[in-house]
Amino acid sequence: MIFVKHEKDVQPADLSAEHDLKGVELRPLITEKDGAKHFAMRLFRLEPGGYTPFHVHGWEHEVFVIEGAGQVVGEEGSQSLEVGTAVYVPAEERHRFQTGESGLVFLCCIPNVP
Amino acid sequence: MIFVKHEKDVQPADLSAEHDLKGVELRPLITEKDGAKHFAMRLFRLEPGGYTPFHVHGWEHEVFVIEGAGQVVGEEGSQSLEVGTAVYVPAEERHRFQTGESGLVFLCCIPNVP
Repeated sequence: MIFVKHEKDVQPADLSAEHDLKGVELRPLITEKDGAKHFAMRLFRLEPGGYTPFHVHGWEHEVFVIEGAGQVVGEEGSQSLEVGTAVYVPAEERHRFQTGESGLVFLCCIPNVP
Repeated sequence: MIFVKHEKDVQPADLSAEHDLKGVELRPLITEKDGAKHFAMRLFRLEPGGYTPFHVHGWEHEVFVIEGAGQVVGEEGSQSLEVGTAVYVPAEERHRFQTGESGLVFLCCIPNVP
């Protein structure tokens, strides 16, 4: 059955146990719990000055910037993000998303982790 | 290697052989050609009055509305879409996306079709 939900009605994930991040809100929009078999869609909001952990993991990210501006930082430097930028972060590549005064809102899809 | 690209720099797909659609632009942002192993991210723009085919296939959609408003139509009726709405269309569910005067822009992710 087709379902719709507004992101404002999705409870943000509890990130209180996470380290090396600032001003990050993560809403899991569509996940395995919804019956999504292959990948999950999450919405991230970074407050002005916010950043995600500089971390590495065994799955890729596919990202699209919806509001604001910022950078994706990898081991080989940083690249600018603006509304309309798509980002591919391969598995096993260290990365961080960060923003300045503007804040940053982006969608981030990941495969269901085996 | 992390890569970024702006959606405006991505060539729209050729939809001239498709039927039962109106005013649809599809930009394949991140696909298997980019090294994406599990799923693809595409950007759809529907002009005012536009719609996608009322069709069915063996893979799911995960969608997020970025601009405008419209409806997703299934066999059991239609549901409203606005900015911030997430949509899950399961495999084998007939569906159409459509819009009125506002137009509609959404991201649509699909698993790599086997």
